[in-house]
Amino acid sequence: MKSKLSIVKIGGKVIEDAAQLDRLLQDFAAIKGAKMLIHGGGVKATELSKQLKIDTQLIEGRRITSLENLEVVTMVYAGLINKNISATLQKYGCNAIGLAGSDGNAFTSEKRKVATIDYGYVGDITAVNSTFIQLLLDNQLTPVFSAIGHDGKGQLLNTNADTVAAEIAIAMSALFEVELIYCFEIQGVLTNMDNEGSVITLLDEANFQLLKAEGIIVAGMLPKLNNCFHAINHGVSKVKIGNQELLHNSDCLHTKIINP
Amino acid sequence: MKSKLSIVKIGGKVIEDAAQLDRLLQDFAAIKGAKMLIHGGGVKATELSKQLKIDTQLIEGRRITSLENLEVVTMVYAGLINKNISATLQKYGCNAIGLAGSDGNAFTSEKRKVATIDYGYVGDITAVNSTFIQLLLDNQLTPVFSAIGHDGKGQLLNTNADTVAAEIAIAMSALFEVELIYCFEIQGVLTNMDNEGSVITLLDEANFQLLKAEGIIVAGMLPKLNNCFHAINHGVSKVKIGNQELLHNSDCLHTKIINP
Repeated sequence: MKSKLSIVKIGGKVIEDAAQLDRLLQDFAAIKGAKMLIHGGGVKATELSKQLKIDTQLIEGRRITSLENLEVVTMVYAGLINKNISATLQKYGCNAIGLAGSDGNAFTSEKRKVATIDYGYVGDITAVNSTFIQLLLDNQLTPVFSAIGHDGKGQLLNTNADTVAAEIAIAMSALFEVELIYCFEIQGVLTNMDNEGSVITLLDEANFQLLKAEGIIVAGMLPKLNNCFHAINHGVSKVKIGNQELLHNSDCLHTKIINP
Repeated sequence: MKSKLSIVKIGGKVIEDAAQLDRLLQDFAAIKGAKMLIHGGGVKATELSKQLKIDTQLIEGRRITSLENLEVVTMVYAGLINKNISATLQKYGCNAIGLAGSDGNAFTSEKRKVATIDYGYVGDITAVNSTFIQLLLDNQLTPVFSAIGHDGKGQLLNTNADTVAAEIAIAMSALFEVELIYCFEIQGVLTNMDNEGSVITLLDEANFQLLKAEGIIVAGMLPKLNNCFHAINHGVSKVKIGNQELLHNSDCLHTKIINP
């Protein structure tokens, strides 16, 4: 029987508030068994870009990444946020190791081809080095990944953190029974954005398509849910969306993605 | 018999010029056997601080590190420079893994006590986790360390890169036959700063004290040499100072530190 691996992706407002992030990391550190964290960090990067007078352009939630933008996200995601997370987890007795895709060749990306939109230095994942990640996990290390990838030819690439989490979860499913948790500030997928209690507790792909067609699930939630269904359809055992309570209370209100 | 470990510390102008850094990393990647890189990155941090209107104060080459300065050096050293180095080494077939002190608890520091000068968030190394570093080396990984340490209580600390290199070299000497190379833009310790050919090829501590007393070795070279003698007196087999030619040609002009 495969052993359990918990993969938690954190993003949104939980990263921006230092005290909230500290509590979240304390909860994460307490998760038993093999685990891994993947983080975003968009708003801080946008702030720094502003201070440096570098234009930031988002299309459908995706950052158009010039070379200057790439420098900023590499500094903020792989430097500031990643190292503060690894130091905080060490404080809580979790032997974290903060990494980007280039480290140990953990994951490779390719620069997105220009179709209608030129995303610049944005990458799509091409491979995950599960042997390397397993080596770390087998030695009781907890990988903490920023979503900065590389193309194997020396170029760093800004990669979507939700997608990094899904692709790593899928790759690790060959070796572990993987639970993937997308953790942000709300309790799950809502049917009414103005009502935090309107959480859809179970969601399969047919219902997702229906709710999408009806315009009930919209905007930023769509790519996240695409990643969720991609993961559950490709070997990941459990996929959940919720807030940080989910890290210490699996019975709390959240959205469970199912593959019926 | 212990196997060989090459530890290279790079700093100064070789980091600032992209083309020169690329060539250096190509030479580093070609070094046979277990190896490790430690890097600084001061000037880029100073530039970014200026752009962000954050004061930078250096006393005897040491950066006074406010919380704002700490954010900047964490972004620049552990993010931008560290990840560009790891991606470039991957390009050259070297399986680099870019880390800060908090990653795998690689090294811990303590905040420097306030004596006459308050250095702020500057750390002095208290321990090196040689077991963790050996695990990486035994798996053909090449650690690339930025000099951002942590205190084990969640606080990152700006640590001197020359000292990080010396302390890691000393710790690894229990397990490996360590060669430590300090690599920067000049060929070695000079008797005359205006004459690049005036390299002292062999330097022992007695001669160092003599040259220091005579005012021939001054300024930024003094702490570097203190680190060199600390290393050679505490188990490191070879300590050298030179430019990047030393990485592919051990016969080139350089300074060899000796413990007679």
